[in-house]
Amino acid sequence: MDKCGIREMIKDLARLDYKNMFANDFFLTWEKSDDEIAATFAVADILRGLREQNISTKVFDSGLGISIFRDNSTRTRFSFSSACNLLGLEVQDLDEGKSQIAHGETVRETANMVSFMADVIGIRDDMFIGKGNAYMHEVSESVQQGHAEGVLEQRPTLVNLQCDIDHPTQTMADTLHLINHFGGVENLRGRKIAMTWAYSPSYGKPLSVPQGVIGLMTRFGMEVHLAHPEGYEVMPEVLEVAERNAVESGGSFVQSNSMEDAFADADIVYPKSWAPFAAMQERTDLYGQGDWDGIDALEKKLLEQNKSHMDWECTEKLMQTTYNGSGLYMHCLPADISGVSCEHGEVEASVFDRYRVPQYKQASYKPYIIAAMIFLSKMKSPADTLYRLLEEEKPRMR
Amino acid sequence: MDKCGIREMIKDLARLDYKNMFANDFFLTWEKSDDEIAATFAVADILRGLREQNISTKVFDSGLGISIFRDNSTRTRFSFSSACNLLGLEVQDLDEGKSQIAHGETVRETANMVSFMADVIGIRDDMFIGKGNAYMHEVSESVQQGHAEGVLEQRPTLVNLQCDIDHPTQTMADTLHLINHFGGVENLRGRKIAMTWAYSPSYGKPLSVPQGVIGLMTRFGMEVHLAHPEGYEVMPEVLEVAERNAVESGGSFVQSNSMEDAFADADIVYPKSWAPFAAMQERTDLYGQGDWDGIDALEKKLLEQNKSHMDWECTEKLMQTTYNGSGLYMHCLPADISGVSCEHGEVEASVFDRYRVPQYKQASYKPYIIAAMIFLSKMKSPADTLYRLLEEEKPRMR
Amino acid sequence: MDKCGIREMIKDLARLDYKNMFANDFFLTWEKSDDEIAATFAVADILRGLREQNISTKVFDSGLGISIFRDNSTRTRFSFSSACNLLGLEVQDLDEGKSQIAHGETVRETANMVSFMADVIGIRDDMFIGKGNAYMHEVSESVQQGHAEGVLEQRPTLVNLQCDIDHPTQTMADTLHLINHFGGVENLRGRKIAMTWAYSPSYGKPLSVPQGVIGLMTRFGMEVHLAHPEGYEVMPEVLEVAERNAVESGGSFVQSNSMEDAFADADIVYPKSWAPFAAMQERTDLYGQGDWDGIDALEKKLLEQNKSHMDWECTEKLMQTTYNGSGLYMHCLPADISGVSCEHGEVEASVFDRYRVPQYKQASYKPYIIAAMIFLSKMKSPADTLYRLLEEEKPRMR
Repeated sequence: MDKCGIREMIKDLARLDYKNMFANDFFLTWEKSDDEIAATFAVADILRGLREQNISTKVFDSGLGISIFRDNSTRTRFSFSSACNLLGLEVQDLDEGKSQIAHGETVRETANMVSFMADVIGIRDDMFIGKGNAYMHEVSESVQQGHAEGVLEQRPTLVNLQCDIDHPTQTMADTLHLINHFGGVENLRGRKIAMTWAYSPSYGKPLSVPQGVIGLMTRFGMEVHLAHPEGYEVMPEVLEVAERNAVESGGSFVQSNSMEDAFADADIVYPKSWAPFAAMQERTDLYGQGDWDGIDALEKKLLEQNKSHMDWECTEKLMQTTYNGSGLYMHCLPADISGVSCEHGEVEASVFDRYRVPQYKQASYKPYIIAAMIFLSKMKSPADTLYRLLEEEKPRMR
Repeated sequence: MDKCGIREMIKDLARLDYKNMFANDFFLTWEKSDDEIAATFAVADILRGLREQNISTKVFDSGLGISIFRDNSTRTRFSFSSACNLLGLEVQDLDEGKSQIAHGETVRETANMVSFMADVIGIRDDMFIGKGNAYMHEVSESVQQGHAEGVLEQRPTLVNLQCDIDHPTQTMADTLHLINHFGGVENLRGRKIAMTWAYSPSYGKPLSVPQGVIGLMTRFGMEVHLAHPEGYEVMPEVLEVAERNAVESGGSFVQSNSMEDAFADADIVYPKSWAPFAAMQERTDLYGQGDWDGIDALEKKLLEQNKSHMDWECTEKLMQTTYNGSGLYMHCLPADISGVSCEHGEVEASVFDRYRVPQYKQASYKPYIIAAMIFLSKMKSPADTLYRLLEEEKPRMR
Repeated sequence: MDKCGIREMIKDLARLDYKNMFANDFFLTWEKSDDEIAATFAVADILRGLREQNISTKVFDSGLGISIFRDNSTRTRFSFSSACNLLGLEVQDLDEGKSQIAHGETVRETANMVSFMADVIGIRDDMFIGKGNAYMHEVSESVQQGHAEGVLEQRPTLVNLQCDIDHPTQTMADTLHLINHFGGVENLRGRKIAMTWAYSPSYGKPLSVPQGVIGLMTRFGMEVHLAHPEGYEVMPEVLEVAERNAVESGGSFVQSNSMEDAFADADIVYPKSWAPFAAMQERTDLYGQGDWDGIDALEKKLLEQNKSHMDWECTEKLMQTTYNGSGLYMHCLPADISGVSCEHGEVEASVFDRYRVPQYKQASYKPYIIAAMIFLSKMKSPADTLYRLLEEEKPRMR
């Protein structure tokens, strides 16, 4: 994309209504309007375009981006760091220790104490049903209050780096990949995507990706097919979101217990392991009670249960049944690859390998999506600022 | 504070004599002249004012701020990071491992090896009587020598982020909070502050806060009342500092063993747990001898001793006895709150909650105090540089 | 060095042929031409000169420097951080966990996932023979492929921060120290350097320093004498490099089993412990087999073997036999100092102390060498860019 192309994109961006994103958080994609979602994609593409043209997008001269990872993370950590660095923020990690789950006033105090110069806070907290998103709201309200009371000069906004409900930075990156892959968001209309469960020998993977995918991709007139074995249901409220979205966008949302049905004629497949919602809720309760024996027993039971669905694997044979035998395979990475990272996993090695490059490209959008979320929540006139960056043409690298 | 107000403050600053702060360390507040203390407050307020006006205060284009934390820290760590970031320095943490206490040439070598591009070194080392401040001096002398010998291009200056004797970044932030709360340093004159011990179920809290408070607040004509149970004495040399300060400033310094006497008619109360000086010295000796059984026995003894003073709690009833029943409650945070963070602690929950906002504001000064210390030790003409920043009006955030 | 001196150095630099360093990695010094080595020294000195003149050398407005340390490190970590900061890159550390040795596609995936905004990757991986350098190549090829495939906007280049074969940032810093100490690279011609083994009570020190020294210092017409007890041989392929270099440069390369012979009339001595190559290879194999008992037995054997060579110590008496009794003592630090850091070690305390300042100066070149390597691999016209930095004279510190 050259400078003219970037200018056009900014012009299109300026037509959208995203004023409510200013000084606001990004929790769940379905809390954002269509224009806000479109603006996020646009800003991500524009920031990427500017960087490709070696034009600096450093809009902060100083300021911190606070990261709180309540689960191990390499990819998301680097994506958040990259996004902050691209805009001029320095990352400072708050390492609470995994075991310590703070509540109430402790959250309020810590959130304020680390935020005196924070412009954005990125949180990953996806392990416990009913907790992660709630914790993010607690942090957000704490710093809003701190700002209102004169404790904080600025109001740090929040970016959800994965919670128990949604994984917006992942699914927005996934969708932007699809938009660019198929040549425009209008070309997603009518396409079938199979968001399916797949077998993995590991336990307790979060539900945020399948939930996030059905909650977002139903907005573009796509045919979204969610398939999983019985007992691997996702959160009912997200199902409602997907159904409502499908109606509104003129697409469809289908659920089944058949990987084959989901893959049949699909343009895109997204086979991925997750834990059953009910089991995750049970686990959350057991943790709350400190019932470690119960947790061990649950883990054992879940792994056994998984094993009865080892046939849920993304095989070459299945891929043949997709549209023209050439559906696009997606994964949020890292995948459990049969014969590579485990004996039996989510996907056959040859399928994974064939789609390695598109998958890496898919991942490459995440830093830009995060940067766009920060940009839109902090800049008073995003389009004007982008124009000015383009005009000034300050080199990113001499 | 608008631009005119900032300009006035810089004008006032320029009248003070702080030339000895250039290329110098900040160890103990009582090693600094009244003008130097006043300059630090002024620069902190000016930096805060500039930031509120969205004016960049980035005076370093590159450079490192080295942090050495020999005790866990979240608040001070983020304050140091924030201060460095505000001025344009990148923080690099030296994690020595807690157990390894370096001496002599090892300190000299490490201090030089990490400082090739360091402009400032911030150290927290408060656990052992007679050690922390000494270690900071060792580091400072090492890098001064390295600079003199041509090893280091620049001389990194030191900021004491808490030692066994003083906690200057905390008590300077506390005092700046009081100055702004009461509308000017001249309004501190004659005010009574109760710096009192309070019960906590934990063991071995540093003495640097009470020592730092009596060593600093006696300089402003205040009536400083230090109260603690018998056996909880602070370092004798700091008592001497407080007495001398009180005489010189026209204030007073009173010691007692009565929390009631201290609180009576106090404008400000600062109830906080600490370990007895003599016991901390004993512990330091036991560590030196590697006498772990002795340390366990001492800890047990101290916790028992604490328990006989559970009545030293900041209650609503006691708060009623302060001036007009509305004395200002202060704490360096985190506090041990009765019924919240522990069964019995330093303060009743309702008292703490009522003063939550002023406490957070109190904490919010720390990053600016640290930045002011760095600024005054590194800038050749601090007032001129501040004028120029104000004139240039480079935005912190676009 | 004043601005005129810097200008002259840039002029000299512009005459060298270093165009192949652009968009290229720095693995082993002997893979670089004489001009490329000379250019690296020149850029390091110029960057240092600019910094001494308080002139900013920040050529990146944003961008990440990824560090991967597969062995503990303080000095190299700070050197890499300092170098990145000097040029405007922010360091992001990839902590893989020590035990996890990634291979093949996992390396490819991780390398790409962390590199979306990475301009440079610095790796230290020196523990296993045949592994470290190979791993670096794997990472480099992965990101080159990622760049070629459109996954990465830019191609991150690699800096070898120590591998199993070479330690180029150390030995280049060592050599630049010698060049400046003796007043020019031409003054190294004919000088004798004793690279000798020395006793240490620790086990398994990498061979990269002695190998790197003989592989580099033989290029400047020096008489390089490698001495070690029988059984402490280094990698045969590096011996060949040293022999070839010596022939080409008109110097000499001598091997012996006598510390005395090496020290006799030496201008420079570099006594340092290392593990035998064959033993390191054995250890690598044992790790591969997961034979922990075998590893323990090997460690015990090696420590015993070391003990029979405790007379390999750099003593005052030996130093007397160097040229004029005043040969320059070098060490990569930290040294095992007899009676200080251990009972018997590599060097007598009085020798070490006498050469403390030159050693620290030696170490001070490392950040600039690393910065030069990055600069030459990322800047399209290094000399032009340096001229412009000199002309613009943007202050590093206000």
